[in-house]
Order: sequence, then structure tokens, then C-alpha cells
Amino acid sequence: MNEGEGRATHSFERRIPEGEERLRLVCRDCGFIAYENPKVVVGAVCLWERKILLCRRAINPRASFWTLPAGYMELNETSLEGAEREAWEEARARIEIQRLLAVYNIPRLSQVQLIYIARLLSPAVEAGPESTEVGLFDWSEIPWAELAFPSVRWALDHYRAGDGKAEYPVQMNPPGELGNM
Amino acid sequence: MNEGEGRATHSFERRIPEGEERLRLVCRDCGFIAYENPKVVVGAVCLWERKILLCRRAINPRASFWTLPAGYMELNETSLEGAEREAWEEARARIEIQRLLAVYNIPRLSQVQLIYIARLLSPAVEAGPESTEVGLFDWSEIPWAELAFPSVRWALDHYRAGDGKAEYPVQMNPPGELGNM
Repeated sequence: MNEGEGRATHSFERRIPEGEERLRLVCRDCGFIAYENPKVVVGAVCLWERKILLCRRAINPRASFWTLPAGYMELNETSLEGAEREAWEEARARIEIQRLLAVYNIPRLSQVQLIYIARLLSPAVEAGPESTEVGLFDWSEIPWAELAFPSVRWALDHYRAGDGKAEYPVQMNPPGELGNM
Repeated sequence: MNEGEGRATHSFERRIPEGEERLRLVCRDCGFIAYENPKVVVGAVCLWERKILLCRRAINPRASFWTLPAGYMELNETSLEGAEREAWEEARARIEIQRLLAVYNIPRLSQVQLIYIARLLSPAVEAGPESTEVGLFDWSEIPWAELAFPSVRWALDHYRAGDGKAEYPVQMNPPGELGNM
């Protein structure tokens, strides 16, 4: 929705517009089509020495479970800027992106996740408004049973599998996994 | 916008909702927030032997210029399925995705592009409704001066740079380039 379109009042119905093949939200009055698009989640496995930054979620879904700093990409930013912003918002962490770790698809949620590996510029992290607690975890300390989403586990496993390798291809969903809990 | 929200009538204004820090489209009447999100473009460098599939655009922007088969990802599909769908819609091409070539950011357009390398299952391609012409091009035949978008050139260059290498990292925007024409 661009600004002009956004300011108008629309009365949407779901129908197939002329020349298209899919159901869309079309305004009964003016024909404006509000396209619905998949959302991009950007985040990072953030490292201080060999410790990994995790955030305990303050909000639903999955409040009180642990996650990587990640969230919806905003307009007019790059995916790298988005991952840096989320690390700040959720954990007051300043990071430097090192490489793309994975592209995950969660089609049930119409979500594409771009997960990077990043270096923390300082170990001084603290909970932002969407976290109740943040921490730096050794591999052996990761609370596997309390992770918020399957894709958090995927990213941790993929980080670990590539750790120390000079070249490691960008990963995708583990075979057969679509992110359903 | 979910289905229920989509069916309602809203009168949007742009303001900062309570608890947020950014301008959003908020319904004056009910407070519903229509989040605006970056869009995902999915596409592929599609190969038959060493020839590359290009499509001459039937529609604006950049009608009559050449592009890779690519377009907006739809709800409830994966990025790979989206790239396969676009190859069919634009060039009646059946493809098999081989690997992720690049993740490009075009922040001015709030666009993330996921470009794959794919193998054509047959050289029998023909223009779909959004193309006037499609063709298989040797590297020396690529119409560089008539490419539709900078990211088409980036993807062709990145494909060429990685051609024949066993491992080739996923590429990003060329340094300093943000996709402005």
C-alpha cells in the first residue's frame, strides 16, 4: 500500500481481479488491490568469543522462550541493517555482520527468514523492550527445551556445523522441516 | 492483513501507535495496524547447457527490456517454489533449482531479491503473459544494453564469476550498488 492508497478508505472483498489468476483483496468501490506478501524475518547468530546471544521473549508468540535476536524487516532498510537493528532492539547489542548463514522458508506463515552470523562488538548486552532477559551462552548451556521456534534450533545447528570452516554454503530448511511446531 | 481484517472497511492514517517508534498505517476507527513490509522477489538464472533464459518484458516497469524470470513471491509458497512458478509464468519453462546464487537488497524499493541458479528441464520455452519474447542466450549474445534492471546484470555477472566452481558463496549487491538505475 503506498502512502496515497493508505490514506484512503477501502472496503475490501476477496476476488480474482481481471487478468490475474489468484484471489486478491480488492476494494469494492475503487478496484484498488491490496497485495498480500510474504514477510521477511531478519536475524543473527551473534557471537562473543564462542558464546551465543539469546533473548528470552517478553511477548507472544512463545513468550518466555528463548530466541535469536530477529524480527520483521522494515521498509527502506537492507536485510543486514535489519538484523543489526533487531540485535539492538531486543538485546541492546551492537553487532558486525560477518556472513549469511541461512535462508529458511516457513510457507505456513508466509515467512522468509534471512539469518546471518555476526560478531558482537561488546559483551555488554541487556534486555530491550521485547525481551525479559538476554544472555551469552556456551554451546553446552543452550536451553534446547526452551527455544521459541524450530528455526532457532536450525540456525544454532547450522552455525555449529559450519563453525571453523573457511567456506560453508548458505543453509536452507533441514530436509522435511517446514517450521511447524 | 489477515482475511478477517481484509474484509473490513478501514480509514487509515499514518501515525506512531502506542508502544511503537515508527509511523504506521493505523485505522482511525478501530486501531487496526496495516503493517507495510518489504517485498520478496524470487527468480533464477535458468540454464540449458550453457545458454541463459531471458524474457522480454511485456509490462511496465521497463517494458520491452530483457530480464531473468523473476517476480513477487506469493503467500504460502517457499522461495524455491516461487522461483519455479515465475519461470513457468514468464517463459513456460520447467526448471530444477540447483542453488542460491544471491540475496540482493534494493532498500529504495523495500525489496529483497532471492536469485537461484536452475537447470531447464527442456529447451522448449515460450512467452507467458508478462513476456513478449523469450530466448536462450549464449554469454556473448546477452543484450547488456537492454537489460531491465541493475540486479539482472548483477545476477548474470555473479553466475559467470562462479561458473564451474564447486563452492561459491552466496553473493550480495556489488559494493556501493543499491539498484538505482
